[in-house]
Amino acid sequence: MFRNTYDSDNTVFSPQGRLHQVEYALEAVKQGSAAVGLRSKTHSILLALKRSTGELASYQQKMFRIDDHVGIAIAGLTSDARVLSNFMRQQAMSSKMAFNRPVPVNRLVSAIADKAQVNTQEYGRRPYGVGFLVIGRDQSGPHLYEFSPSGNSYEYYAMSIGARSQSAKTYLEKHYESFADCSLEDLIKHGLHALRETLQQDKDLNVNNTSIGIVGAPSAHEKTTNVSFRILEGETIQPFLDTMVPKDAPAAAPAPPASADEDVQMAE
Amino acid sequence: MFRNTYDSDNTVFSPQGRLHQVEYALEAVKQGSAAVGLRSKTHSILLALKRSTGELASYQQKMFRIDDHVGIAIAGLTSDARVLSNFMRQQAMSSKMAFNRPVPVNRLVSAIADKAQVNTQEYGRRPYGVGFLVIGRDQSGPHLYEFSPSGNSYEYYAMSIGARSQSAKTYLEKHYESFADCSLEDLIKHGLHALRETLQQDKDLNVNNTSIGIVGAPSAHEKTTNVSFRILEGETIQPFLDTMVPKDAPAAAPAPPASADEDVQMAE
Amino acid sequence: MFRNTYDSDNTVFSPQGRLHQVEYALEAVKQGSAAVGLRSKTHSILLALKRSTGELASYQQKMFRIDDHVGIAIAGLTSDARVLSNFMRQQAMSSKMAFNRPVPVNRLVSAIADKAQVNTQEYGRRPYGVGFLVIGRDQSGPHLYEFSPSGNSYEYYAMSIGARSQSAKTYLEKHYESFADCSLEDLIKHGLHALRETLQQDKDLNVNNTSIGIVGAPSAHEKTTNVSFRILEGETIQPFLDTMVPKDAPAAAPAPPASADEDVQMAE
Amino acid sequence: MFRNTYDSDNTVFSPQGRLHQVEYALEAVKQGSAAVGLRSKTHSILLALKRSTGELASYQQKMFRIDDHVGIAIAGLTSDARVLSNFMRQQAMSSKMAFNRPVPVNRLVSAIADKAQVNTQEYGRRPYGVGFLVIGRDQSGPHLYEFSPSGNSYEYYAMSIGARSQSAKTYLEKHYESFADCSLEDLIKHGLHALRETLQQDKDLNVNNTSIGIVGAPSAHEKTTNVSFRILEGETIQPFLDTMVPKDAPAAAPAPPASADEDVQMAE
Amino acid sequence: MFRNTYDSDNTVFSPQGRLHQVEYALEAVKQGSAAVGLRSKTHSILLALKRSTGELASYQQKMFRIDDHVGIAIAGLTSDARVLSNFMRQQAMSSKMAFNRPVPVNRLVSAIADKAQVNTQEYGRRPYGVGFLVIGRDQSGPHLYEFSPSGNSYEYYAMSIGARSQSAKTYLEKHYESFADCSLEDLIKHGLHALRETLQQDKDLNVNNTSIGIVGAPSAHEKTTNVSFRILEGETIQPFLDTMVPKDAPAAAPAPPASADEDVQMAE
Amino acid sequence: MFRNTYDSDNTVFSPQGRLHQVEYALEAVKQGSAAVGLRSKTHSILLALKRSTGELASYQQKMFRIDDHVGIAIAGLTSDARVLSNFMRQQAMSSKMAFNRPVPVNRLVSAIADKAQVNTQEYGRRPYGVGFLVIGRDQSGPHLYEFSPSGNSYEYYAMSIGARSQSAKTYLEKHYESFADCSLEDLIKHGLHALRETLQQDKDLNVNNTSIGIVGAPSAHEKTTNVSFRILEGETIQPFLDTMVPKDAPAAAPAPPASADEDVQMAE
Amino acid sequence: MFRNTYDSDNTVFSPQGRLHQVEYALEAVKQGSAAVGLRSKTHSILLALKRSTGELASYQQKMFRIDDHVGIAIAGLTSDARVLSNFMRQQAMSSKMAFNRPVPVNRLVSAIADKAQVNTQEYGRRPYGVGFLVIGRDQSGPHLYEFSPSGNSYEYYAMSIGARSQSAKTYLEKHYESFADCSLEDLIKHGLHALRETLQQDKDLNVNNTSIGIVGAPSAHEKTTNVSFRILEGETIQPFLDTMVPKDAPAAAPAPPASADEDVQMAE
Repeated sequence: MFRNTYDSDNTVFSPQGRLHQVEYALEAVKQGSAAVGLRSKTHSILLALKRSTGELASYQQKMFRIDDHVGIAIAGLTSDARVLSNFMRQQAMSSKMAFNRPVPVNRLVSAIADKAQVNTQEYGRRPYGVGFLVIGRDQSGPHLYEFSPSGNSYEYYAMSIGARSQSAKTYLEKHYESFADCSLEDLIKHGLHALRETLQQDKDLNVNNTSIGIVGAPSAHEKTTNVSFRILEGETIQPFLDTMVPKDAPAAAPAPPASADEDVQMAE
Repeated sequence: MFRNTYDSDNTVFSPQGRLHQVEYALEAVKQGSAAVGLRSKTHSILLALKRSTGELASYQQKMFRIDDHVGIAIAGLTSDARVLSNFMRQQAMSSKMAFNRPVPVNRLVSAIADKAQVNTQEYGRRPYGVGFLVIGRDQSGPHLYEFSPSGNSYEYYAMSIGARSQSAKTYLEKHYESFADCSLEDLIKHGLHALRETLQQDKDLNVNNTSIGIVGAPSAHEKTTNVSFRILEGETIQPFLDTMVPKDAPAAAPAPPASADEDVQMAE
Repeated sequence: MFRNTYDSDNTVFSPQGRLHQVEYALEAVKQGSAAVGLRSKTHSILLALKRSTGELASYQQKMFRIDDHVGIAIAGLTSDARVLSNFMRQQAMSSKMAFNRPVPVNRLVSAIADKAQVNTQEYGRRPYGVGFLVIGRDQSGPHLYEFSPSGNSYEYYAMSIGARSQSAKTYLEKHYESFADCSLEDLIKHGLHALRETLQQDKDLNVNNTSIGIVGAPSAHEKTTNVSFRILEGETIQPFLDTMVPKDAPAAAPAPPASADEDVQMAE
Repeated sequence: MFRNTYDSDNTVFSPQGRLHQVEYALEAVKQGSAAVGLRSKTHSILLALKRSTGELASYQQKMFRIDDHVGIAIAGLTSDARVLSNFMRQQAMSSKMAFNRPVPVNRLVSAIADKAQVNTQEYGRRPYGVGFLVIGRDQSGPHLYEFSPSGNSYEYYAMSIGARSQSAKTYLEKHYESFADCSLEDLIKHGLHALRETLQQDKDLNVNNTSIGIVGAPSAHEKTTNVSFRILEGETIQPFLDTMVPKDAPAAAPAPPASADEDVQMAE
Repeated sequence: MFRNTYDSDNTVFSPQGRLHQVEYALEAVKQGSAAVGLRSKTHSILLALKRSTGELASYQQKMFRIDDHVGIAIAGLTSDARVLSNFMRQQAMSSKMAFNRPVPVNRLVSAIADKAQVNTQEYGRRPYGVGFLVIGRDQSGPHLYEFSPSGNSYEYYAMSIGARSQSAKTYLEKHYESFADCSLEDLIKHGLHALRETLQQDKDLNVNNTSIGIVGAPSAHEKTTNVSFRILEGETIQPFLDTMVPKDAPAAAPAPPASADEDVQMAE
Repeated sequence: MFRNTYDSDNTVFSPQGRLHQVEYALEAVKQGSAAVGLRSKTHSILLALKRSTGELASYQQKMFRIDDHVGIAIAGLTSDARVLSNFMRQQAMSSKMAFNRPVPVNRLVSAIADKAQVNTQEYGRRPYGVGFLVIGRDQSGPHLYEFSPSGNSYEYYAMSIGARSQSAKTYLEKHYESFADCSLEDLIKHGLHALRETLQQDKDLNVNNTSIGIVGAPSAHEKTTNVSFRILEGETIQPFLDTMVPKDAPAAAPAPPASADEDVQMAE
Repeated sequence: MFRNTYDSDNTVFSPQGRLHQVEYALEAVKQGSAAVGLRSKTHSILLALKRSTGELASYQQKMFRIDDHVGIAIAGLTSDARVLSNFMRQQAMSSKMAFNRPVPVNRLVSAIADKAQVNTQEYGRRPYGVGFLVIGRDQSGPHLYEFSPSGNSYEYYAMSIGARSQSAKTYLEKHYESFADCSLEDLIKHGLHALRETLQQDKDLNVNNTSIGIVGAPSAHEKTTNVSFRILEGETIQPFLDTMVPKDAPAAAPAPPASADEDVQMAE
């Protein structure tokens, strides 16, 4: 009932040693539409459900380019995501200017984790209400990190965040041992299957609601020689969707776009 | 009951991961009189119900010019709108001086979104209580953005904000696919129909309560060669009103001006 | 009951998107004695009930000169009025020194509106508890503005603020269409009738309780060639009072001075 | 019950548009022993009940000299009075050094009123708990001002502040029309009668409990040619007391000193 | 119950215009062991009950030297006293260095009174919890002041502070008229009688529990030619004790030291 | 219920002289998975249960290298651990640059203890929610310290922190007298037995869930000549696991990885 | 229940003029294990019960060296003690560098008392939760001071702080008159007897739980010529323990170490 009860003040521990505000911020992440990330020996990829806020908007970005070699997918408050991703871009740019080479991915991830930790400890600010999957490629190869509002970041073989991400995680845990040696095409196929698990029963992935982020050598389906971070959307992802095993039952009918109530726009 | 409950402190998450103060600020936007925006391949336009605070005032501005190529329509607290629009003008001016060309529209929108995000995160300030529809024209063509107090901004084909804007949105969603190739005259006609949906049953649009903002080549009804942002009001909008399909039932009787209780003047 | 409920903290929105503290500050304005402003094509005038705090004070100022071309009438907390009017004088003076011409009236009004908006958004200060009617004359002719503690300001043909100002507004709305072409004498006559509407039943205007502020060419009743802002008080206003239509019923008896309990002196 | 209710936080308006803390500060003034001020065309005078905190103190100052031409009488918290009167002295001194002439009285009064207004608006300080009667003489003649914790200041013909000052005001209102042309002796006589009205039934004024402050040419009873502010106390005021009309009933018996519980020493 | 009720926040007035926190600080003074001060035409003296915190401590200071010509006796929080007395010493020293003569006593007293007033008005500090009797000698002769946490200071002929000081005051009021012309010996005798009034029934003054502070020419009982502030303790005060009239009843038996529970050590 | 009760504000003592917030922070440490530290005359070692947050993450670090001669194991909030360990690294680096030799271990430990103490005393920050076991080697030999959020740090022969660390401590207390003269192999064997005590009944240590940190000369099982701090993981620890006495009952079956719910990730 | 009640806010007086937070901080001191201090004409000594936090720690310091001529024993929060003792060391060092001689002991004690007083008066920090016995030797001979969190410090012949220190004080009060002329051996013997009074019934002093701090010429039992502050522990104190009179009843059995629950480690 009061702010200053344990559960509404991020600078106070509960008797159980918990920081409730941080946990509630993690709830904001869980309300965002789902994103999935996977890593092979050669590629890191992101797959996300594009946010549809009605038909009037061209589209809502779920993935953002940070630098040539780094990209993110978000779940949670988009205004917080913009602030943090701008911060990542500045870090990437100053690192490049100072050292004349791309910033290592883990340094970028640590920088926002440090920034987020401060908001869990000091009075006068709330924690950030957004989570990221970060993919990138540096001298030590392809990477996949999760950043969370608690100020934590971990490296993963595969991970999912956002609404119903637990279903995607279950899929990923069943198959992750094969990811390391997957071709890009197979990695994307796995990612699409995992992402489909986060959909409601009567929905399916299609060229309108799905976007794919990639770092690493291009697929045969891509008309590019680009190895930098790139986002595939619209018709360009049809070849990848075609590789999927159809949903068990009535998946033949064309699926409507994903429900608009998933990402967190705070009542807009 | 207490400020520091989740719903009265913008720096605190509710257990559901929500920021109630931001949601309440969005309510302030919903209490402003409606505005509508549309975009074709060549034009972006705004249409708004002029605020009448009684007969004694000449008129209350609902649209503001930011720069030659950018204009806004507001819904919500007008004093907050003044502060934010002044900030946009300064951004536009310094960008022009620094780069010797007009600021890209999306950069202007990002600037106020960043400014608004800070007020949703830090202690000591409330969120802004105003929303904008922003139209503009830059090297990438005409644009339409919505800015909201949550710190979010999105690009749209067509959008409506303010009181009863849902009715306008319903109209826009039904017709938006044709907007891209509309002439300016047809685009305005669509906009007027959408705006009329926000009126109460017994009211209609007229030269006193309607204003139109345009960027792009002038219509035949306009006596100008100006392609910059301009606001049409009074008799100059009669030709556009004449193109409308009359309201179904008793629309023959002349409509009184819009009710004065719509925009948010805080009890004045 | 608590400050931090919606209605006692100016930096918090209520669930309805309202700022209660700002609304309560507007109440302070409504407790001040009434003032009326009118504008013709050639003149702007103010009329106010002088505050009588008993017989011992010579008089309490309700009108203040800001610059040669600008004056104000106040309703609400007089100490707040002093602070804001000093701020206007400084703005007027520095503008004159910087640009070598009088400050445009709307710029002066915007300056205090911006100052007032800050107090509705940031923590640590209450809103101002005073409203102004501002008249002035600049290159674009005579003007009449209302400034309110909410940070809003609007231009009017005619307006009234303070206690029972609604009765004056009703009068003004009935006649405002004729104001534009009124002579100064007729404009003042209209203003006096409007001001009289704010009096209690058994009171009337007289040379002791009424003051008149004018910008524009002098009336035949004035012994001046001054076109700057000036305040008429005492016997000099008798000729104008003589033009009024007597109050309907027992208006023959000389009226006592206005009740002392009207302006807001906070219990002094 | 809570500080942050309307009545305990000076930075919050009540729903009626009132600032309760300021009103409570005015209560502190009402608890101080009474002071009376009067003004003729040639003189301004102060009369005050000296505070007796028991027999052990030589006397408690109720009047203070600010500059040669200005003096004050206080009612309320004496420690606040010391701070504000020191501030007035500094203002008077720097004005004299800057302009080489005594500071106009109204400028001094405005300076402390501005200082007091800040404490009614900003968070972190209480209002001052003291009121002043200020007399002075400058190029525009003799003056009498009242300063109050609300940040207001007014010029008066005659005024009274402090405990039971309403009784003094009633006397002053009955006679103030004659004050302008009074001799100093008659002005003091009026002041003493007014001050006596603030005493309890069984008390009377005497050389021990009364002090008189004067600016203007000396009385025949004074052994001075001084026209500056001066304070008369003890036997020097007997001639003035002798001019009074005796109290109606048992006023023959010598009156005891005024009750010690009147001024506000906060429980000392 | 709440801090922010009137009685626990020093920056808030109660509806009666009182500052409860200041009154509670005065309670802290009343819990200190008593001190008495007296002034003749030639001397100012202090007498105090020495604090005994058990037999293990050599003694607890109740009197402090500030400068050659100034000394104090304290009642209340000893840590606050140390801070304020250090402040007085610094003021005395810088005044001496700046003006090459001892600081006037009233200036020293004003300096701490100003410092204390700030703590009664601004948020973030409590009032000081200690009172002083200050004696000193300057060009205007011997002085006795009382300083209190409210920020007030008064000059007295004689005064007492601390536990049961009212009994001492009653004695002093009965005899103060004779103090002006007393010899130092008689002045000390009066002071000892007054101090004895503050003792519990079964206790008496003795060389262990009494200390005497003096400014002025030495007594015949003193082996010094010193006129500066000095403190007499132990056997040197026996001659003065011998001049006292024995306590009425069983005063013959040697009295035990004063109860240890009197001064305020906050539960040590 | 309120923050400002004793148990939710780290800057407030309870009537029993306790700081509840600090105690709750210690609870956060107890929720981390266990770590064990031991010291012989020649070596200091750490043993920790690696955190498994599902199979998808490569691994979660429980041990961190601070400098060549210092390493830590953590239990509690990992984001706080990152901040504090970065601080240790900076301290180590600047000490090395300033004095040209490695920082003494106890100086490093004091630095973070001081940093943590501030957060237990000042308003506006919570205590850190993480505990460390710190091992290191300097001129005075090998060391083992515990750092706790209370700002305390102690040197130990052997210690355990985190979930069910009491069981490990019981083991260590039974055997610690023999540690001083143990070979590295025996020391590790003792450490593994102690660590196993913190497991749930049906679990056992294996190459996946155990990591070992060492300072001192390498074991025969290590393929290194390194005496600096190093972390052994995976198959390299099998030889050490092979030295353990099997768990009493059904320890033959391969144990699953440690439960994922142990370390404190705040609901991720 | 609320922080801002009198008993949880150190900047607020209770109606009785008490500062409850300071009193609760004194409770933290009472929870520390006991320390005893004594002073003769030639020596000052400290005796303390060493804290045992289980067998795994080598030992917990209860005494700290500040400078060659000063040492302390602590009771209460050890992290606060570290901060304050570091502050004393810095004061001692800068004094030595500035004046080229050891700092007088009372100056060191005043410095931390001033530092502690600030924390009892200003908002935003709690009082320190630790008490010190300080011994030292300077030009005025040996000294013994007590420092308490209230900001007070007193000089004593003998004193005890911490758990059950009242029993030690009772012993000391019975014998303190003989301390001044004691030999070091006898002084230590008295101290050991006093310290033993603080033990529980079934415990006794031994070489493991007792430490002795000394300034002054060495005893015959010490193998040193050192007169600086030194701490005796372990077997070196056996000769002193041997001088004690055995405990009355079952003191023959060897006593276990002191209970570990005494000093305040905040739940570690």
